Amino acid sequence: MSAEEQTCVDISPLIFRQLFDRETCTFTYILGCQATKEAIIIDPVIGLVERDAKLIKELGLKLKYGMNTHVHADHITGTGKLKEIFAGCKSIVSKRSGAKADEFVDQGDQVMFGNQTLECRCTPGHTDGCMTYVCHDHKMAFTGDALLIRGCGRTDFQQGDSGRLFDSVHSQILSLPGGYKLYVAHDYKGCTITTVAEEKQFNPRLTQTKEKFMEIMANLNLSAPKYIDKAVPANMMCGYVAE
Amino acid sequence: MSAEEQTCVDISPLIFRQLFDRETCTFTYILGCQATKEAIIIDPVIGLVERDAKLIKELGLKLKYGMNTHVHADHITGTGKLKEIFAGCKSIVSKRSGAKADEFVDQGDQVMFGNQTLECRCTPGHTDGCMTYVCHDHKMAFTGDALLIRGCGRTDFQQGDSGRLFDSVHSQILSLPGGYKLYVAHDYKGCTITTVAEEKQFNPRLTQTKEKFMEIMANLNLSAPKYIDKAVPANMMCGYVAE
Repeated sequence: MSAEEQTCVDISPLIFRQLFDRETCTFTYILGCQATKEAIIIDPVIGLVERDAKLIKELGLKLKYGMNTHVHADHITGTGKLKEIFAGCKSIVSKRSGAKADEFVDQGDQVMFGNQTLECRCTPGHTDGCMTYVCHDHKMAFTGDALLIRGCGRTDFQQGDSGRLFDSVHSQILSLPGGYKLYVAHDYKGCTITTVAEEKQFNPRLTQTKEKFMEIMANLNLSAPKYIDKAVPANMMCGYVAE
Repeated sequence: MSAEEQTCVDISPLIFRQLFDRETCTFTYILGCQATKEAIIIDPVIGLVERDAKLIKELGLKLKYGMNTHVHADHITGTGKLKEIFAGCKSIVSKRSGAKADEFVDQGDQVMFGNQTLECRCTPGHTDGCMTYVCHDHKMAFTGDALLIRGCGRTDFQQGDSGRLFDSVHSQILSLPGGYKLYVAHDYKGCTITTVAEEKQFNPRLTQTKEKFMEIMANLNLSAPKYIDKAVPANMMCGYVAE
């Protein structure tokens, strides 16, 4: 292709916002169909629901789904609270997560909002129910904790399994075209985005052999997430905290 | 236009990265010309230069300019350090800032890197030398502290002048087409982007009359930035700290 390459597409425009929680370094994503205003939110954080709801309203969007990439251990999801604010909003999670939600998704399912579609890909290994949501029209994927920028989610609690994570990431995420933009659930160094091509070349863990990767993951010696005892049970039911 | 609107463009693709400093909530931007790999960085933070340099190298970019939107009071710029890492990289700042740099820009000047162009617009009011850089091809503007998401930079130190800031933002930023994406120098609530249309409708300060805006700005009662005594003198000379 020439330097001045011709980009000529016929796809429905997307309204897109990336949001950040400074406390847990969690990214939340709002995706809206420009034409119909139907929208979804991925991985909202309970303490920031007011911020997110205000923005959704200002953008003139109708929230159809509150989705999680997985049952988080580091923060409580905001999907339950968002359902209270936006009548008709439904929660979505992987059926393999064991969590409660209004709708469940599995490998190959499609989530539709307006003229936009997300393909669901199972990427277990950090947890059993980890899901990557792929928007082919806009060449974007939301990887949750399966793949992080130059890293990946830990595999030492919940249903962590490093061999399984390696296979998931390679077969479901790094198999996408190199130019696909990857939006992750966390970044601790202030990065906001990566691509398939970048991670295939520069991810220090996932460019290793499976055996070496498993060895690295077995020797991270990380401390437990601060809120895991509260977060996991709450996230099994849309963030509603048991009294 | 129909819902499935036709987008047909003939512009040179841009490599773009937004980066965040969790300590001072500062955004740094890397823009690279896909075709030629020439690149610039806007508002780098001295403590994160290694992160930024690593990413610039991984993306295969050649850093042409290290630019500042203004003489920051809250952090020390990384342009000096980046010049040491990337041979040939030059620093740029507004000639109205009074700061030292390799090149100076003023109203209407253009900064070119590869096939990409930024238009320089003077937006004084937070400081005398505040500059907004506009990339018309990609409908983006980098507003520094002149305009923040649902806010604006303070006007109570350096050469702060709230009436001037009001005029700058309205004449140079909010006069751009509504769909232009605005990338700011800071956000303290985890938002990452806004648009001209959004700020024209929802900015709580800048949707007021000039008189009301000046009254709001005169009554913010903010404490001084933590690092102002070190940051301002260092930023007058590309972040080199006087021994």
